[in-house]
Amino acid sequence: MPQLTREEAHRCFGGTQEVFSYASEATGSRMRFAVYTPPQPGPRPALWFLSGLTCTEQNVITKAGAQRACAEHGVVLICPDTSPRGTQTPGDTESWDLGEGASYYVDATAAPWAKHYRMETWITEELRAVVAAHFPVDPDRQGITGHSMGGHGALVLALRDPSRYRSLSALSPICALSRCPWGEKALPALLGDDPAAWARWDAAALIRAGARVPEILVDQGMADPFLEGQLKPELLEAACAAAGQPLTLRRHEGYDHGYYFVASVIGAHVAWHAERLG
Amino acid sequence: MPQLTREEAHRCFGGTQEVFSYASEATGSRMRFAVYTPPQPGPRPALWFLSGLTCTEQNVITKAGAQRACAEHGVVLICPDTSPRGTQTPGDTESWDLGEGASYYVDATAAPWAKHYRMETWITEELRAVVAAHFPVDPDRQGITGHSMGGHGALVLALRDPSRYRSLSALSPICALSRCPWGEKALPALLGDDPAAWARWDAAALIRAGARVPEILVDQGMADPFLEGQLKPELLEAACAAAGQPLTLRRHEGYDHGYYFVASVIGAHVAWHAERLG
Repeated sequence: MPQLTREEAHRCFGGTQEVFSYASEATGSRMRFAVYTPPQPGPRPALWFLSGLTCTEQNVITKAGAQRACAEHGVVLICPDTSPRGTQTPGDTESWDLGEGASYYVDATAAPWAKHYRMETWITEELRAVVAAHFPVDPDRQGITGHSMGGHGALVLALRDPSRYRSLSALSPICALSRCPWGEKALPALLGDDPAAWARWDAAALIRAGARVPEILVDQGMADPFLEGQLKPELLEAACAAAGQPLTLRRHEGYDHGYYFVASVIGAHVAWHAERLG
Repeated sequence: MPQLTREEAHRCFGGTQEVFSYASEATGSRMRFAVYTPPQPGPRPALWFLSGLTCTEQNVITKAGAQRACAEHGVVLICPDTSPRGTQTPGDTESWDLGEGASYYVDATAAPWAKHYRMETWITEELRAVVAAHFPVDPDRQGITGHSMGGHGALVLALRDPSRYRSLSALSPICALSRCPWGEKALPALLGDDPAAWARWDAAALIRAGARVPEILVDQGMADPFLEGQLKPELLEAACAAAGQPLTLRRHEGYDHGYYFVASVIGAHVAWHAERLG
């Protein structure tokens, strides 16, 4: 087990909000993640929250107010950083939508990204084991959610292997990464030129190809400026309808893409996962 | 009435979080303030929240999660910026603890501060009238709270004229400004060399001098690094005990000075004010 460095610790809603870093083997870089431990004794259900483009682990822990609901329901909340950092990967700090803060949660296969940008392996294998070893979580009761590109991350990491998470939701997610401008730029860079490879990291395409989970909850604001161009919940809705994949997609009039929306709905997501994780 | 410019608007917990700016006569500068309007129809009780050193109106509206409780209790939350900005007052951007972001909520009387740093007049007269004219508040049902130096601000603005606010609380406040290093630096600069003038902006001194409000609620974290050197709740406690001023001072083991503490207790403060404001 790697040695963790505790970067921050704050009492919060009777539990503890902490931030850690450690030398990750999966990414070959120092990685950060945040953990909120509720006041109840463990082992507790764990909820993973993946954040969006340009974010770090800080955005959700400082702005969403999720700790209140996690304290109420006795849920451990795990918030990984959104990419490797400081790896000197060529181009990884040149644009906000590819590289640091913009990993798209894939295991990259194309140069120069394949060496460090191995986010699926980091989150679903290595960090999962680190969390199980260090925190009072029940490894059999884990759910995942996320916001924006982190919503995409939650959907694809759960759909690519439904045994990983027992519950799945997303807030304002990118629903079909290979069919939006962000993915059209990033997926060829990270995965090469084969469209079949892109489809394996596209939530709607995974469902069309047969991936199934018990149910999916999605909340989406209708005043979100990325709704039509990037998020496209209608593609997820159509894929789920065609495939018989249970989906609850709630549209919220007047809400935008930011953390005022996340804060408004995150409590309901924590409660929803807690109910399913027992 | 001045013309307001709406700088931000976000749907949040069924209400609206907005940020405005306008040309203030009181400070002779463009001032910003935030207003959360809950979903309930007006007129509603208003709660003022004053923020601490280095803050703007953004800290509390993005990090405290107070909108949830304001939506639940039907409270309008008003969050002013912490100082004039861009006034070219000599020295006002040289240190973080005097000038921009560090007004101490006084009406300054000494040069060069007296021209623009008129925060009591701005908050308790001018902005109060602006808010009453533009937002669904009941002017007879207003309370005030604040964090850190904003907790000091809430205490002194209410104690200097108890007719202004019907309820008063503070989170981690500076309790005796003239007897801590921040005040020992700032008060002579803002008010000149007369200690009697400093005492009129010191919460504990005001109470010792006879100021009274119906009751005061204070929450304080016991792992707060500023507790002994700057905050000194024991001086407020002693002044209230000697004067017969009702005070509820709650000490919270393990909590620090930051917004993880504010978020943990702000809901209780909103509920406490809502109960008193009817």
